[in-house]
Amino acid sequence: MPREIRLNAFDMNCVGHQSPGLWRHPRDLSSTYKDLEYWTELAQILERGKFDGLFIADVLGVYDVYHGTAEHAIRHATQIPLNDPLLVVPAMAQVTKDLGFGVTCSLTYEHPYPFARRMSTLDHLTKGRAGWNIVSSYLDSAARNFGMKNQVRHDDRYAVADEYMEVCYKLWEASWEDDAVIRDAQIGVFTDPRKVHQIEHYGEYFQVPGYHLSEPSPQRTPVLYQAGASRRGKDFAARHAECVFVAAPSKVILKNYVSDIRRRAAGFGRDPSKLLFFNLLTVIVAPTEEEAKRKHQEYRQYVSYDGALALGSGWTGIDFGQYRPDQRLEYIENDAVQSATESLTISDPSKIWTVEEVANWIGIGGLGPLLVGSTEQIADALEEWVEETDVDGFNLAYAVTHESFRDFADLVVPELQKRGRFKQQYLPGTLREKLFNGGPKLPDEHPGGIIRKQGLTQLEPAQSSA
Amino acid sequence: MPREIRLNAFDMNCVGHQSPGLWRHPRDLSSTYKDLEYWTELAQILERGKFDGLFIADVLGVYDVYHGTAEHAIRHATQIPLNDPLLVVPAMAQVTKDLGFGVTCSLTYEHPYPFARRMSTLDHLTKGRAGWNIVSSYLDSAARNFGMKNQVRHDDRYAVADEYMEVCYKLWEASWEDDAVIRDAQIGVFTDPRKVHQIEHYGEYFQVPGYHLSEPSPQRTPVLYQAGASRRGKDFAARHAECVFVAAPSKVILKNYVSDIRRRAAGFGRDPSKLLFFNLLTVIVAPTEEEAKRKHQEYRQYVSYDGALALGSGWTGIDFGQYRPDQRLEYIENDAVQSATESLTISDPSKIWTVEEVANWIGIGGLGPLLVGSTEQIADALEEWVEETDVDGFNLAYAVTHESFRDFADLVVPELQKRGRFKQQYLPGTLREKLFNGGPKLPDEHPGGIIRKQGLTQLEPAQSSA
Repeated sequence: MPREIRLNAFDMNCVGHQSPGLWRHPRDLSSTYKDLEYWTELAQILERGKFDGLFIADVLGVYDVYHGTAEHAIRHATQIPLNDPLLVVPAMAQVTKDLGFGVTCSLTYEHPYPFARRMSTLDHLTKGRAGWNIVSSYLDSAARNFGMKNQVRHDDRYAVADEYMEVCYKLWEASWEDDAVIRDAQIGVFTDPRKVHQIEHYGEYFQVPGYHLSEPSPQRTPVLYQAGASRRGKDFAARHAECVFVAAPSKVILKNYVSDIRRRAAGFGRDPSKLLFFNLLTVIVAPTEEEAKRKHQEYRQYVSYDGALALGSGWTGIDFGQYRPDQRLEYIENDAVQSATESLTISDPSKIWTVEEVANWIGIGGLGPLLVGSTEQIADALEEWVEETDVDGFNLAYAVTHESFRDFADLVVPELQKRGRFKQQYLPGTLREKLFNGGPKLPDEHPGGIIRKQGLTQLEPAQSSA
Repeated sequence: MPREIRLNAFDMNCVGHQSPGLWRHPRDLSSTYKDLEYWTELAQILERGKFDGLFIADVLGVYDVYHGTAEHAIRHATQIPLNDPLLVVPAMAQVTKDLGFGVTCSLTYEHPYPFARRMSTLDHLTKGRAGWNIVSSYLDSAARNFGMKNQVRHDDRYAVADEYMEVCYKLWEASWEDDAVIRDAQIGVFTDPRKVHQIEHYGEYFQVPGYHLSEPSPQRTPVLYQAGASRRGKDFAARHAECVFVAAPSKVILKNYVSDIRRRAAGFGRDPSKLLFFNLLTVIVAPTEEEAKRKHQEYRQYVSYDGALALGSGWTGIDFGQYRPDQRLEYIENDAVQSATESLTISDPSKIWTVEEVANWIGIGGLGPLLVGSTEQIADALEEWVEETDVDGFNLAYAVTHESFRDFADLVVPELQKRGRFKQQYLPGTLREKLFNGGPKLPDEHPGGIIRKQGLTQLEPAQSSA
C-alpha cells in the first residue's frame, strides 16, 4: 500500500500571510481575517478536503530588517496588522468535527502556568483537536517589547524551553489522574482529592508548586509541533515534537533533515517512524498545465517586491534593501540565502537568480517549493517528494485564500485519493488518534509520557488515603 | 421616564461557579462547561433576554484557606477544575449579535504586550463587543505558581496596574491612527506607515518600545470593568472603570459605595453619571411566591456546606473550618464577615446567623443579596434597589444554570419592560455604544482618551511625511 500523504493548511491571523501583495487580488479574502466568517469558511473548506489540520503561524514582532525599518512591512501588510492566533480556533471548532488545529505560541514570552490552562481549555473545547507549535521567537523586535535588550541567547533559550516543557508536562500529565473526576451526585463528590496532585516544580527558571487548574482534557498534552533548524533546535524537535515542520527548499535538503531528526529521535528512545514531517509547499493547480501557468502569471502581478523582501530580510537577517533588483544572487554571500535559493534550481539548475526573481518567488507562499501544474502533475510531484525524501506530507501555504485551499481540496485531494495516497475519511477520536492511529495521549517513551508515569508515583495527593 | 435597569449575567468557566454543590441538581448544566454548546446555548438565552452582557470571572489559584487545604474545594468542584475564560467568547460571538462579553484577566501575571493584542483580537472578532474586567488576583496560591513567595504587596500592585493600563492605552489608542489602514489596491498600500507609531514606553515596570500589532478594533480599548474595594482599589476603579462590579450585601453599603466612587471619578475629571454600577445579585423567581420558595427549598438541598465555606474562607481570609456549624456569627470578629453578614439582616434584622446558615446563603450565588419571590416581587425589589442606592443594574449569579438565567429572561425581563425599566431592544453598534449611547471609543476625559490625544502629537510615525 503506498504511503499516505498528510496535509496541513498554513495560515496566520493577518493579511496575505506569506504572499505579500496578493491581498490586492480580486478573489483574495485575506484582508477579512478579522471576521469570524473568514475562519469558519476556511475550516469548512479544509474539512471537506480532509486536511489533517490547520496550522496557524504567529510572531510577536515586526519585520524591520529590510532597509532597517518596519515601514515597508507596514505599507504592504507584511504580517502586520497581526492578531492573536488562539482566539479564532473555538469558532472553527464549532463548525467542524475532525479538523485539527496547530496553534503557534511562543514559550519565550508567556508563563507556563496560565499557558498550560489555556491549551487544556482549547483541547476541551475542540474535544481533543488541539495542537501546539512550540516556538521561541526569532525577531529581535519581539524581544524588545518584553523589556529585553535583544533576544535571549540562543542556547539559554533552549534551556528555558526544556524546563518550560517540563512544567507543562507536569501540569498536563501528572497533576490529575485519569479517574480523578468522578462526578458522583449520590455521594456528593465531583473530584477525588486523593487523585489530584500539586506538581511541586522548583526549577532554575520556573517555580510552580501548585495544581493544574483544568481537569484532564481528551489529549492532556496537545499534539506537539515544532520546527527546529539549529543543532539545539533539532535536538529539541527530536525530543518533543510529534509533528515537525520543515521549510526545505529542495529534496536533498529535506531528505537529509528528515533522516537527521529521525536518527536523533531514536537516540532519545523514541520510535522515529512515529514522527510526522510536513514540508512547506505552495501549489498552484488547475485542470490543465496551461491554466495553472496562466493562474501563476495572474498571481505574480500582485506580488509586492518590498513586502516579499521585508519577509526575506526578516527570515535571513540580511537586509536585501542594500541590493539592486537586478543584482544576481551569486554575489550575495550568506548561508541562509544560498540554502533558500537552492530550491530555485528545481526548475532550472543553470539559472542565476536576481533579487527581483527571488522576491517574486518568496512573494508567493514564502521559502518553500512552489509547484505549478495540472492536477496530475501536482499529484505526481507530491508522490515523488514523499518517496524520495521520507517526508510525510505538506504544510500548504496559500497564494490566494481561500482559493488555493479550495483548488487543492477540489482537484488534488480526489486525485491522491484515487491513487490510494490520501485518506477517504478521517479516523475517529482526537487529533493524536487521527494522526498516529494510536491512543489519545502521548506515548510512554515521550518525555511527557515519562513524566506522567513518574509523576503518579512521586507526587503527594491533595488528600492522603485514610 | 424611570431609570433603565442594566443587566449582566455572571458565570465562570467551571462547575457551579458560586453555587458549590448545585452541580448535583438534576437540571443544572454547569458540569458541561467544557463543551462549546454550554456557552452558545447560554449566550442565546441571554441575548433573547436582552442582557447587556455576560461577565466571566476567573482566578488563577485554588481555595485553600478552609481547613488549610484545597481538598474541600477539589472534592466539591469549588472553582476547580477551572478553564480559561477568553476562549469561550468567540464561539458565543458567532451565535449572537448584540450580547457583550466582559472577560476577567489578571494584569498581575501577563505581560501587557501580548495581552493587548489578545484583547484587540477579541474586539475584532466580536465586532466591538469585548469588555475586560481588570483584576489583580487575590489568592496567594495564584502568586506562588508564578514563582512569587506571596502576592505582590497591595500598593505596589496598584502601581504596576497603573503602568500596565498606560501601556495598554498607548497600544490601543495611540499606536495606529484611525485612518492608518487604507487598503488601497490601486496604489498598493494597505497601511499608511506615516500613521502608525511605536509607543516608546520606557517605564518603571515595563519597557515596550514597539508598534501595536493589531490594527484598530471597533472599540480600540475594550469596555473596562473593575471592582475595587480598598482605597487604592476604589481610586483605580474611579480612574479607569466604565462599569463597576460591586458585591454589596445591603442597600446602605451599596449606596455609600456608589456615591463614593462617583465622587472619586468626578475628582479625576470624569462625568460620574457615566459610570455604570452592577451589584452582585441572585434571584430565584417563579410566577408565584409559593413556587419561588419551593424552588429555593429544592435548590438548598444541593448546597455543599464545605464547598460554600471553602469559597467564603478564600474570599475573607478567615478559615471557617475552625468553627462548628452551629456557632453564631456574633462571636466571630472580623470586618469582612461583619460586612458580609449585614446582608443577612435584609430578611430578618434581629436574627443571629450560624455558620451553617451562612454556608447555605453563600452556597446559592455567593456573597450578594439573594432575592426569592414572584415575578412582581422581584421586579419591585429591583426597582427599590435602583431607586434607593443609585446602582445601575445587577450582576446576576446563578443558582442552577441555565435555569436561573432562563427564568429571569422569561419572567422578570418582560415585567421590567412593561414597567419601562428595561430596554425593548438593543441599541446599535459596539458594546460601549449600547451601554452609554455615545461613541465606540473611550471618552476624551478618560485616561485612555487623554493618551489617545497626547499620543498622536507626540509619537514618531513609522515613516515621516516627505
